[in-house]
Amino acid sequence: MNPLATSSALQADIQQRAVPAALIDALKKRFAERCTTALVVREQHGRDESSFEAPPPAAVVFAESTADVAFTVKMASDHGVPVIPFGVGTSLEGHLLAVQGGISLDVGRMNQVLSINAEDLTVTVQAGVTRKQLNEAVKSTGLFFPIDPGADATLGGMSATRASGTNAVRYGTMRENVLALEVVTAQGEIIHTGTRAKKSAAGYDLTRLLVGSEGTLGVITEVTVKLYPLPEAISAAICSFPSIEAAVRTTIQIIQMGIPIARVELIDANTVRMVNNYAKLGLREEPLLLMEFHGSPASVKEQAEMVQEIASESGSHAFEWATTPEERTRLWTARHNAYFAAIQSKPGCRAISTDTCVPISRLADCLLDSVAEADASGIPYFLVGHVGDGNFHFGYLIDPKQPEERNIAEKLNHALVARALALDGTCSGEHGVGLHKMDFLVTETGAGAVDMMRSIKKALDPKNIMNPGKIFIL
Amino acid sequence: MNPLATSSALQADIQQRAVPAALIDALKKRFAERCTTALVVREQHGRDESSFEAPPPAAVVFAESTADVAFTVKMASDHGVPVIPFGVGTSLEGHLLAVQGGISLDVGRMNQVLSINAEDLTVTVQAGVTRKQLNEAVKSTGLFFPIDPGADATLGGMSATRASGTNAVRYGTMRENVLALEVVTAQGEIIHTGTRAKKSAAGYDLTRLLVGSEGTLGVITEVTVKLYPLPEAISAAICSFPSIEAAVRTTIQIIQMGIPIARVELIDANTVRMVNNYAKLGLREEPLLLMEFHGSPASVKEQAEMVQEIASESGSHAFEWATTPEERTRLWTARHNAYFAAIQSKPGCRAISTDTCVPISRLADCLLDSVAEADASGIPYFLVGHVGDGNFHFGYLIDPKQPEERNIAEKLNHALVARALALDGTCSGEHGVGLHKMDFLVTETGAGAVDMMRSIKKALDPKNIMNPGKIFIL
Repeated sequence: MNPLATSSALQADIQQRAVPAALIDALKKRFAERCTTALVVREQHGRDESSFEAPPPAAVVFAESTADVAFTVKMASDHGVPVIPFGVGTSLEGHLLAVQGGISLDVGRMNQVLSINAEDLTVTVQAGVTRKQLNEAVKSTGLFFPIDPGADATLGGMSATRASGTNAVRYGTMRENVLALEVVTAQGEIIHTGTRAKKSAAGYDLTRLLVGSEGTLGVITEVTVKLYPLPEAISAAICSFPSIEAAVRTTIQIIQMGIPIARVELIDANTVRMVNNYAKLGLREEPLLLMEFHGSPASVKEQAEMVQEIASESGSHAFEWATTPEERTRLWTARHNAYFAAIQSKPGCRAISTDTCVPISRLADCLLDSVAEADASGIPYFLVGHVGDGNFHFGYLIDPKQPEERNIAEKLNHALVARALALDGTCSGEHGVGLHKMDFLVTETGAGAVDMMRSIKKALDPKNIMNPGKIFIL
Repeated sequence: MNPLATSSALQADIQQRAVPAALIDALKKRFAERCTTALVVREQHGRDESSFEAPPPAAVVFAESTADVAFTVKMASDHGVPVIPFGVGTSLEGHLLAVQGGISLDVGRMNQVLSINAEDLTVTVQAGVTRKQLNEAVKSTGLFFPIDPGADATLGGMSATRASGTNAVRYGTMRENVLALEVVTAQGEIIHTGTRAKKSAAGYDLTRLLVGSEGTLGVITEVTVKLYPLPEAISAAICSFPSIEAAVRTTIQIIQMGIPIARVELIDANTVRMVNNYAKLGLREEPLLLMEFHGSPASVKEQAEMVQEIASESGSHAFEWATTPEERTRLWTARHNAYFAAIQSKPGCRAISTDTCVPISRLADCLLDSVAEADASGIPYFLVGHVGDGNFHFGYLIDPKQPEERNIAEKLNHALVARALALDGTCSGEHGVGLHKMDFLVTETGAGAVDMMRSIKKALDPKNIMNPGKIFIL
């Protein structure tokens, strides 16, 4: 059975394209041991955090410079061979799978922080720099980079998937925070988009076209992003609620009142239990919100007081404050480990992740019915959410050897997406389309808009070599 | 002489394309008096606020629905005739000129506010709704739409040029504030991009590709934008400085400290004089910053105190506060009338506007040298700036009958743009490329990126009928 076949968009015939020996020879000649066909390396580059499987790429190239990337793409273009950009492999939607064969182009060694412009609150990095590395590099400037998808992803990967995460409710997503890019086109040419100016009306917004293009239009090699002053005051709190509904209603009111909360994350009782087991946290096993407030001391106090008042009207328990940086780190590490805690709760399982995002007023409608459906299904799941953005994730924990479990999970996912779309929402808040959401994308935006995407893809990558078979099948 | 010829990008042969009688007949048959060839209407639709001139369009269609737009574009496509979308005509860069002939498609009558979703802080409007009309429509909800380019432009036009203005320093530009679009493609098909969800990673970001595409990829017919809660407290102040440099240094520090100021606008002494003459304001004729603070009462007080301290270190005079809504309106009306005040100061003149935007730390370097050059040139000018974004505008006041004045102004403009680009800035912060900045665009982003834009244009509009000859010449 084609392991991808349960996702209806993936039932199209997937052809592995031939990778000529002449291409491998040319790459080995230039890159020596930095081009490898060793199976273990190819397999490690042929998967990601999704539950999908495909044959590994024919070779892996470890680029150390933009010139390396340009050379590789140019050679691949000459031979009509797919190129799949690879950062650290944390995609959740099958972006890194070589579904049509080809070369995995690992930019992880392109990890230089190129220029920190603290007085402009910008930084330019190579695509392989990870978000933690970036924050370490800018720490002494009093600035930070807020986008936090949980995983320690690369800036190139985060740009390619239009990532966001826990801080997006306050600071926006990669869409709002990438100022400029260096990109190797599908022809192997190096281009630059955007500038370090905060805004621009100079021509088509290629930066934002490439942000979220999932490697299908070119390889991102450098990224310039905004930085923010480290808040004068930060405080974080945990607040438990008698029901998910109470937690969600609290969130909706926080957002509708315009309180500039920096983080507001939902974890359901079941997932709290998993996290407790994984990290020995001793959290109250009820639905909870993890919150963080940034600002001046007075502003943080004001925000926290308003939120406490709103929460208590929904019957919340008292806030538990994480006052030291160490306690905050422990809290957010627990949040970020929810995925791994869940995976560990069912040995051998894989998670099928959902990623719907709806307008804030629809959040309760979208979430509560989906919880009821998931509970009724018998499939264990975790549930976490960047609920301030209307974005949440179920992770249905399936045994990959049991097709029926996958079927049930996909049915739950379909019902959830249908619900989100009916509520003016989107099938993907931050993970991207990848292999998994092609049908959803057409339902969401209509065939006309997807045709426009296809036209752009064909114009910019006429040989269809850039990460083919993702977002749509040409 | 071709009146456009002083802009070097416009020296290419500009061909007026034929508009067949059969097309006009078909349009008149459907639209009756809503399709007109009357010269006065065509002339009114063949110009904008720029200093450029071109023959008027062959006809003007007044659309009242998306179906009207789709019909018109489809017919024009069948005949290979240009279509130039028109809102209220406030473009500053020649966007509305029929440089290749064709039909002006006026969407000004598509002025319905379609749905206000106050609980989600979103609103959907037809493209012809203006920003003042929008704010009037949502006033009772306690929300507002902050993007304020000065002119009472349409939401369609503001989207098409990626407009911003005085509030962008706090609330972002159209780039950050458009959530979704309805668009008629160059083939006359109706498509939808985006959703009302706050964020999305579902496929290529067509919304942001179309925002700022200046009518060259399709006609925007509906726009969904974000709204914001009216701040609990607003206070506005005028502060005069002994020099432009002192005002600019103050601005740089405000931004670098992360103070969330809502507006910070520079007006130079000369322009204050023009505004005083025009509106009898009695402002101190020195460089000044107009500022506005939004937030809770405590936060507004805190922001204002910090800014006053920074300003006084630069030798500023005391703040003069505009405490009532009426005083604030008077203040911002004066700012918005700077353009008209300047035009009136030299009877018969036109303004050649600049629009550079640089990283905040480079603002003084970019601005002060350009002031010195403008002063030395003998050409009168006004100078205003959204300086918190690093964006400012000279308006060189030229006699259109004196080619030498235009030449001097264009030389000043070229020198300013070259300076801005050398400082990592952009040739256009918010006005767009239009007819005026094609060469600058290539210098700024490189031929490779402009080639990518051209490829997209050719793919989406193979007959080159959508506002041809703007941004680049195919």
